[in-house]
Amino acid sequence: MKNLMNNVDTLLAESLDGFAAAHADIVTLGVDREFVRRKRTKPGKVVLISGGGTGHEPLHAGFVGYGMLDAACPGQIFTSPTPNQMLDAAQAVDGGAGVLFIVKNYSGDRMNFQMASEMLDQENAVVIVNDDVAVEDSTYTTGRRGVAGTVIIEKILGAAAERGDNLAQLLALGNAVNKATASMGVALTSCTVPAAGKPTFQIGMHEMEVGVGIHGEPGRRRVPLASADEIAQELTGAVLKDLALKAGQEVILLVNGFGGTPLLELYLMVNAARAVLEKSGVKVVRFLTGSYVTSLEMAGCSITVTAATPEFLALWDAPVHTAALRWGI
Amino acid sequence: MKNLMNNVDTLLAESLDGFAAAHADIVTLGVDREFVRRKRTKPGKVVLISGGGTGHEPLHAGFVGYGMLDAACPGQIFTSPTPNQMLDAAQAVDGGAGVLFIVKNYSGDRMNFQMASEMLDQENAVVIVNDDVAVEDSTYTTGRRGVAGTVIIEKILGAAAERGDNLAQLLALGNAVNKATASMGVALTSCTVPAAGKPTFQIGMHEMEVGVGIHGEPGRRRVPLASADEIAQELTGAVLKDLALKAGQEVILLVNGFGGTPLLELYLMVNAARAVLEKSGVKVVRFLTGSYVTSLEMAGCSITVTAATPEFLALWDAPVHTAALRWGI
Repeated sequence: MKNLMNNVDTLLAESLDGFAAAHADIVTLGVDREFVRRKRTKPGKVVLISGGGTGHEPLHAGFVGYGMLDAACPGQIFTSPTPNQMLDAAQAVDGGAGVLFIVKNYSGDRMNFQMASEMLDQENAVVIVNDDVAVEDSTYTTGRRGVAGTVIIEKILGAAAERGDNLAQLLALGNAVNKATASMGVALTSCTVPAAGKPTFQIGMHEMEVGVGIHGEPGRRRVPLASADEIAQELTGAVLKDLALKAGQEVILLVNGFGGTPLLELYLMVNAARAVLEKSGVKVVRFLTGSYVTSLEMAGCSITVTAATPEFLALWDAPVHTAALRWGI
Repeated sequence: MKNLMNNVDTLLAESLDGFAAAHADIVTLGVDREFVRRKRTKPGKVVLISGGGTGHEPLHAGFVGYGMLDAACPGQIFTSPTPNQMLDAAQAVDGGAGVLFIVKNYSGDRMNFQMASEMLDQENAVVIVNDDVAVEDSTYTTGRRGVAGTVIIEKILGAAAERGDNLAQLLALGNAVNKATASMGVALTSCTVPAAGKPTFQIGMHEMEVGVGIHGEPGRRRVPLASADEIAQELTGAVLKDLALKAGQEVILLVNGFGGTPLLELYLMVNAARAVLEKSGVKVVRFLTGSYVTSLEMAGCSITVTAATPEFLALWDAPVHTAALRWGI
């Protein structure tokens, strides 16, 4: 296990300092690096706050900025941030119109965000993201896990908040986009949490973990390494089955790398997933390809599909200016 | 060695098809996938054409689009494209104002681009990129290698071509930016060329290769794994020594991942490199952080510094719309 770092204990702090320096036009850090916040907030806008364990970069700090999140609270690696971080972030970016917390469905995150929600004086609501169709309940979850679909939900909600939607509208929209979004992933290698110093799981040279979680937690089954077409068929097939899409449905397709897989292979997976979708009569009208919701240096990818309404697409296309996603500005 | 692929022989073709589908608003493929070209070209503009072996994605195809390249010619993995690819690309995107080839300094690439340059009927010139300060001459090179600085050169030249610079002006500007740019990298792991099926080089669990090339070729020295601060000191120090910058100099800093290193660590390296630069009185005024010039799944990073004039910065900031770099549009 090898990392570019000085010390396990200061890894997160030093990385946040580098992030804040590199994107000083977009973000600033809260006191004690409790959160990453938008440099300029907009009075009267509902603020969107997300967060979660570190190790999934660019999620979430990479999505703080115009048209997306107002703040992100980073926990230690694969560990939930604390309610205090969320409360301090909410206070710092408050625009007087309420707070929407966007939370990936993991027990620790849910508990802490729920606590923050209850303690917060401002009007607020919580959107739970649970797009992973691989398993019901898992190592860290009751119910389905929240994975790469989070990017799509944060982007669409961010645009809606920017146009002036109120808290109730954003909550309803968030739940609608989450319901229209499904993901499943595959891992070819494990990740290694620096503080643990050994791989999270063992996997053979000719095996893969189908339905893996973004912390390296088990998925549906451990099987021999298959071809890209077979993998695309299984992942996309599971997603299509979950969404029960009709022929002619327009979708957003996200092929997300887990960190250790080259873009060369991710684009090959785009080609393979698109073929499966088109065979089902589903039309891919927007693509996003890259390592957006990662698991440290794990090799593998996930496929996310969002059944898109014209409204979702308009919000997807709206300008965004964050470290990791930028267009129209 | 595990890849998301169907077959070594079709890996590149399938990946290019996925790339073209995902970015159909920006690019189209040439016949037989000889090149990736801008969908819309601009008559009267000098066209910029680059290319090289595959395995460095998003370089070069990811930089085709408004404000950057007009076409990119992909070779097989770590193998130069052919002169025919370059000639066909030049013919396809010709705007009547000449062609500038941007070539990383490797013997195979130089030879083939030189041949294309001589055979081409259109007025043309060649800019050689050789920003890697690690070694003079190497496995595939006479003289210094061209590495991550290529992104900065392609961005600045792309903006200058867009504003209407002529071929002679672009050639002079390209040489000036190349001269003002220096890079050096470090590898923690090897990469594996899929067709070879075994790691390009062997490296111990507690070793690193300082000055590594982007094909995994040897650098300056093999030493015990050091801390991020020590690595940043060595890489940035070598770059600073090469550029011989004066205190007060403004620079662009690119911390580039080789493919297998998480963003978490790259931002930590930003923090460390910035500290070294500031200690030398050099001022980082633009940052770019991410895996832009990769070596398949190799873990490690490079540090690139460009001594920036106000003109370089204005061209850097100009709008760009490519798959991998986008702002202002």
